[in-house]
Amino acid sequence: MRFEGFHGRAGLGEKPALLVVDVNVGFTDPASPLVCELDGVVTAIQELLRGFRAAEFPIVFTTVAFDEAARQAASVFIDKVPALLTLEAGSRWIEIDPRIAPLSGESVLVKNFASAFFGTPLPSILTGHGCDSVVVTGASTSGCVRATAVDALQHNYRVVVPREAVGDRNPAAHEANLYDLDTKYADVLSVEETLALVERAGAGSPARAEVA
Amino acid sequence: MRFEGFHGRAGLGEKPALLVVDVNVGFTDPASPLVCELDGVVTAIQELLRGFRAAEFPIVFTTVAFDEAARQAASVFIDKVPALLTLEAGSRWIEIDPRIAPLSGESVLVKNFASAFFGTPLPSILTGHGCDSVVVTGASTSGCVRATAVDALQHNYRVVVPREAVGDRNPAAHEANLYDLDTKYADVLSVEETLALVERAGAGSPARAEVA
Amino acid sequence: MRFEGFHGRAGLGEKPALLVVDVNVGFTDPASPLVCELDGVVTAIQELLRGFRAAEFPIVFTTVAFDEAARQAASVFIDKVPALLTLEAGSRWIEIDPRIAPLSGESVLVKNFASAFFGTPLPSILTGHGCDSVVVTGASTSGCVRATAVDALQHNYRVVVPREAVGDRNPAAHEANLYDLDTKYADVLSVEETLALVERAGAGSPARAEVA
Amino acid sequence: MRFEGFHGRAGLGEKPALLVVDVNVGFTDPASPLVCELDGVVTAIQELLRGFRAAEFPIVFTTVAFDEAARQAASVFIDKVPALLTLEAGSRWIEIDPRIAPLSGESVLVKNFASAFFGTPLPSILTGHGCDSVVVTGASTSGCVRATAVDALQHNYRVVVPREAVGDRNPAAHEANLYDLDTKYADVLSVEETLALVERAGAGSPARAEVA
Repeated sequence: MRFEGFHGRAGLGEKPALLVVDVNVGFTDPASPLVCELDGVVTAIQELLRGFRAAEFPIVFTTVAFDEAARQAASVFIDKVPALLTLEAGSRWIEIDPRIAPLSGESVLVKNFASAFFGTPLPSILTGHGCDSVVVTGASTSGCVRATAVDALQHNYRVVVPREAVGDRNPAAHEANLYDLDTKYADVLSVEETLALVERAGAGSPARAEVA
Repeated sequence: MRFEGFHGRAGLGEKPALLVVDVNVGFTDPASPLVCELDGVVTAIQELLRGFRAAEFPIVFTTVAFDEAARQAASVFIDKVPALLTLEAGSRWIEIDPRIAPLSGESVLVKNFASAFFGTPLPSILTGHGCDSVVVTGASTSGCVRATAVDALQHNYRVVVPREAVGDRNPAAHEANLYDLDTKYADVLSVEETLALVERAGAGSPARAEVA
Repeated sequence: MRFEGFHGRAGLGEKPALLVVDVNVGFTDPASPLVCELDGVVTAIQELLRGFRAAEFPIVFTTVAFDEAARQAASVFIDKVPALLTLEAGSRWIEIDPRIAPLSGESVLVKNFASAFFGTPLPSILTGHGCDSVVVTGASTSGCVRATAVDALQHNYRVVVPREAVGDRNPAAHEANLYDLDTKYADVLSVEETLALVERAGAGSPARAEVA
Repeated sequence: MRFEGFHGRAGLGEKPALLVVDVNVGFTDPASPLVCELDGVVTAIQELLRGFRAAEFPIVFTTVAFDEAARQAASVFIDKVPALLTLEAGSRWIEIDPRIAPLSGESVLVKNFASAFFGTPLPSILTGHGCDSVVVTGASTSGCVRATAVDALQHNYRVVVPREAVGDRNPAAHEANLYDLDTKYADVLSVEETLALVERAGAGSPARAEVA
């Protein structure tokens, strides 16, 4: 369904950041109770990492980890999703998947909630870099990706979600959330379209007008 | 689909607040480009208002309004949903639907974004009242209701979404979002179940154990 | 007192915003219980407004107003400072002092707390404009100016406080807070130095290096 | 100086939390460039810890640590206070002073900024415990203690600052900030008065009325 006055295009700005949300081992390893099938997503993120590194735009990874403070802060979230307790601080589950290991100079944020902006210094990182937009990738589409994309828009960043770079354990939820995101909060594009915008931004061309 | 370690029950606490999200005229009047069909939702909210008023629990209404500051703050959101500009500050569109008009002592918050917690003093209102949980109602299920429910959980409140008291212009999005909410963020209950929990909380009985 | 490793200079960025904090009638009119002597401050702000308007940099005014929601949100603040209740929503006390009336396109934000960033969409306004720094002016130095400057730094903006453009009802508190601000959070400069930085930024010259 | 309509008493609520701000080795060890003389403060905090542990009220410690993400998030703060870089993540400087080592079940939060509420899940911890007030202790009075106390008030918690349990490297700044805090944001009390309120709250007596 499409609605008049929705589905606008916001494009990407001149200085996007890449957010890689929760592609830690606890979400990619089949031995984890929280596993999503993310092999294609990891490949797509590898391509985006190459583009962002070439353009020297900021890259921020998030992982979820629960220590004593986090268990107290997210006590209701844990009531709803007891599987979260798997992600114990200090365990191997919280490490970023080695296929997309962060390089020196790239940030890794520990978060306790759905949105990467909530209870973390992410907003201050983006301000410090002068970013005007974010590309949100990772898992899950119906969970932390969506919450992060909505919060990015609320912080008034342009948001792109590259379709192949986000994944979910539930295919129907994946599709339904891409629909909501594209309708109201983010431009859902292909990885190829996203990389083209990143390249233009890196070259100093007005990426924004292009998508209108 | 159901997943091991998800779909937990968090119940309602001892002091819930009722949040009535964006049931302003701009969303209920057929003349508005943002209209949702909300007649059943309004009736359900009337019932919940009676329960919360009887128990003397806090009630907070939100509306969306755009003045100069809001247009600057939500410039990307407006790019995605140009129809938002209908909700001009000072116009009749931003008034709470008269069928559920706030009483004296009930708060009305103006918000510019999806979540009622974002850029508003709502967190401070809930702290001041000593609330431990919220019941989220209003419109739309896939928009401001979901964003508010997710943010309430992030603030570590127990969250109940009464099924008949939330509505959407897209029936498929309504269902998909209730599924996501119930899986990870909120207990989706009937209005009757919700009112029973509110009554027990008002009587000082431990509402939380009951739903486990 | 000066300490090794403190008192650094952060300068101004390439796109500063001017924040005019709480120069509403309730703080400038001798008839108000909250009055500060702000005539010199108003003159200094007039100069800064001219500079920011010439450079076409964003300007945001704040005022404090208490309606039902605000009284609930700031209930403890009101316990500490009962005089705040003078600032009733809709009254003349909450209007920006007419000597520095906002022009069309300039934002006015209603806040309930000390920091202009708290419970308001100010962060989203600054992101939308691509700002990297703020100049904080208004009243009082020991209250809302300091809280706003500290919060601006936490959001990772460079902060300048022009000495003559901030005022306080207590001269000792004024001086003590300028000392703290300059030591840890903001560069305290003269209006003339500030305007020179704004002009350079407006002309596209690197204002930052200059102050080091 | 005292002003009509300021200096109100807010007291302590029924469920206070104890915040121990930045009493990590980097602030207590004379070998650190950030050292404050905090021996008396540590003794006072030991007394408060006994009271809070006896009453089974929540206790949260903060420390400051800089990893790659924090250096990016607080880049302007580091420009102002280059000494902060001493507090390298993983170094001994960031450990809580062993004289007040946290017990099992007590939270330790890593923060990057002045306020313990900023960019951390502290608000969610307090909500989860149903707290209505905080006692702020630690260092420095003119820095993180004040910023945390102001932010606690903004989140609408009653705030007590026990005079002997906060310290600063600059005695004049210590006094000036206690004055500002007591005037507008917090009740500045003795440790003895604070413990009496905590004991009453622990016994279920209305601590709030008592201080009025």
